[in-house]
Amino acid sequence: MTITPNSWQLARRAARMNPSAIREILKVTERPGIISFAGGLPSSKTFPVAEFEAACAKVLQDDPAGALQYAASEGYGPLRERVAHTLSQQSAAAGVPWAVDPAQVLITTGSQQGLDLVAKVLIDAGSKILVESPTYLGAVSAFVPMEPEVVSVASDEYGVVMDDLQTKTANARFLYVLPNFQNPTGRTMNEARRAAVSALATERGLPLIEDNPYGDLWFEAAPPAPLSARHPDGCIYLGSFSKVLAPGLRLGFLVAPKAVYPKLLQAKQAADLHSPGFNQRMIAEVMKDGFLDRHVPTIRALYKAQRDAMLAALTQHFGSMPAGDVALPAAPADTRLTWNRPDGGMFLWARLPQGMSAQDLLPFAVAQGVAFVPGAPFYADHGDARTLRLSFVTPSVEDIHCGVAALAVGIQKYAASLQAIATL
Amino acid sequence: MTITPNSWQLARRAARMNPSAIREILKVTERPGIISFAGGLPSSKTFPVAEFEAACAKVLQDDPAGALQYAASEGYGPLRERVAHTLSQQSAAAGVPWAVDPAQVLITTGSQQGLDLVAKVLIDAGSKILVESPTYLGAVSAFVPMEPEVVSVASDEYGVVMDDLQTKTANARFLYVLPNFQNPTGRTMNEARRAAVSALATERGLPLIEDNPYGDLWFEAAPPAPLSARHPDGCIYLGSFSKVLAPGLRLGFLVAPKAVYPKLLQAKQAADLHSPGFNQRMIAEVMKDGFLDRHVPTIRALYKAQRDAMLAALTQHFGSMPAGDVALPAAPADTRLTWNRPDGGMFLWARLPQGMSAQDLLPFAVAQGVAFVPGAPFYADHGDARTLRLSFVTPSVEDIHCGVAALAVGIQKYAASLQAIATL
Repeated sequence: MTITPNSWQLARRAARMNPSAIREILKVTERPGIISFAGGLPSSKTFPVAEFEAACAKVLQDDPAGALQYAASEGYGPLRERVAHTLSQQSAAAGVPWAVDPAQVLITTGSQQGLDLVAKVLIDAGSKILVESPTYLGAVSAFVPMEPEVVSVASDEYGVVMDDLQTKTANARFLYVLPNFQNPTGRTMNEARRAAVSALATERGLPLIEDNPYGDLWFEAAPPAPLSARHPDGCIYLGSFSKVLAPGLRLGFLVAPKAVYPKLLQAKQAADLHSPGFNQRMIAEVMKDGFLDRHVPTIRALYKAQRDAMLAALTQHFGSMPAGDVALPAAPADTRLTWNRPDGGMFLWARLPQGMSAQDLLPFAVAQGVAFVPGAPFYADHGDARTLRLSFVTPSVEDIHCGVAALAVGIQKYAASLQAIATL
Repeated sequence: MTITPNSWQLARRAARMNPSAIREILKVTERPGIISFAGGLPSSKTFPVAEFEAACAKVLQDDPAGALQYAASEGYGPLRERVAHTLSQQSAAAGVPWAVDPAQVLITTGSQQGLDLVAKVLIDAGSKILVESPTYLGAVSAFVPMEPEVVSVASDEYGVVMDDLQTKTANARFLYVLPNFQNPTGRTMNEARRAAVSALATERGLPLIEDNPYGDLWFEAAPPAPLSARHPDGCIYLGSFSKVLAPGLRLGFLVAPKAVYPKLLQAKQAADLHSPGFNQRMIAEVMKDGFLDRHVPTIRALYKAQRDAMLAALTQHFGSMPAGDVALPAAPADTRLTWNRPDGGMFLWARLPQGMSAQDLLPFAVAQGVAFVPGAPFYADHGDARTLRLSFVTPSVEDIHCGVAALAVGIQKYAASLQAIATL
């Protein structure tokens, strides 16, 4: 091919990069005055602003040259130690000891970067990788530039279904899971499923990528111990400071076994040299003296109240929640809106009655002043068009009640329009 | 291949990732008490700490929710506008108008991330890419994970040699250049070479990646206008705040034409969602009211004094600088140390007499208390083993004099050891 002036020949992978479907939807739905259940934004009420102010001042006074200079790609030592200590402690409390060595911790520019590094180090063009159904869209966006074959594993209310997983492990480079209060469904992998997935992964040598941005945001009880604690040599664990402190500092971390840590580190160095040292020191400073032990319970209480408000409003407007599992793609047809009851996190998952499409509902909802994200884009294969994701963390309790009421009106109007079409 | 438990199958590209040769050398040479000409660290004296303190406080007071929340992948609007304005202004002052639209500016997590995004969007496995000889090692580290064929273009004191470039443009995805005070050589592409490269690139449709982290650090006169100003549709321009403000905030930017901006943006979003919004607002706040117009001249003055000290010390210990060009790989044999006179930036490039190796010299130098980086690792093909990179920005004027004196002793001892071997 002759290159003509100013014509750019793009890499093949560029064809697989796409604008985030959700991002495009958010643009439409973030009009002023709209109550948004659409975004995935932590509540800004939870940002410890005063503590950040004090930490900035302290970091710049104590060691400005250190905080503002180039630094090690692995991350700031005291922060890596704190991450290792916290994970070890939490895992032991959950009944599965996991001795995390700070040398295994790599500080990343948000946990999104952890996904990018995993993709670079583990995915060749055509590699099979396994994901939940539905799965976190940002992970798929991070994986696809390395041109994998993304294979969905059938999933129920507890995550991947073992029967289907067993048929798909051959030659898979890894299984990506988000076991706690998953984005988008809010579901949690229970202890039995964790044990089963872990046993199968160990037996088959299937590496696990365990993404845990929401695990600290539990409402009634801490979730079961991480999969990574059960066989650390076979897992890469990803964590984030975005949901317990603030996303705008863009800091997360990964914990990796010795077999892959050096390559992840080299990929990290090539990607951005290191994550901002100033921000790492800010967060290490804020976390001193057990701050998160006092702070995170306030986030849990806020989000729990908002989840409860959303459940109450849904019950009020759509009747009591039917038994059964709305995260299961093959759920039986239903004539009412159904939804689940997340045990933590930020999202609730709902399904419209048979014959409806969340995408088609959206303009009716927006016309009533409420927004959500249709669920279909979260599926790596065929999306369930009836599903929708409702975030309960950004709007207030009052707005949640108003928003669900508006959603009910939107669904009525959408149903009426379907009826009108059917009777044409 | 059967995957055995806990065995990780790495992507093919992982085999091409390596620990940075320079990073490994720095570990050896950063012993306390060593005068280091090795690092590429800006002087911490130049970090505007008081201004950062004030900016942190202001950003957190004015709009904490905005600064700490998730934000747009493109970057913070006012910062993108400032980048566009500054580049347009500088380019016009250099005689080549370039109307940079803020919509073309993408804020990156250091300019290193710009290189990573360029690699993802433009390089397929086996793609030919062209680099200077020697070239910035970090760029090669960012490119190689996408598995290109990296081809060195012969270079002289003004950058790539036209005759050699002309023979290599066919099917090249791009030419990567660092025209101002290059890392590692300190050389600058002069106006005639820029015009020639730009004309050839336009004629052949060869995309240019123009990396400009050091351009503001000129000592006597601003460098010629960027290549990107000459045909913006055919160039991606990379810039950084690391050398004029501080590297520890990890912020840079790129300017890209419409043909590639959307894909770079999608790659950015998948890589880390966005660069830290807090840091972007800090830098926008510091840059208000023309701060850089007052601040950057102080950096220039400091580094110029230190370059002058290094030139003076080299002349004192190694005789006057011979005419000719030490960046030219085919330079004639010489019996003395030779070096160049960079017009800005952070680095000076030197060559040992014939028969010597900078790698072999290093332990003799370190034994005398001075460190440098051998030049060979900066070559994508066969390195010139006699070359070395000397940074003049981190040590003080006094340390520069002591360090060069120590280097002279080290070279004498090394020469004596060679002599001893030769007479065995």
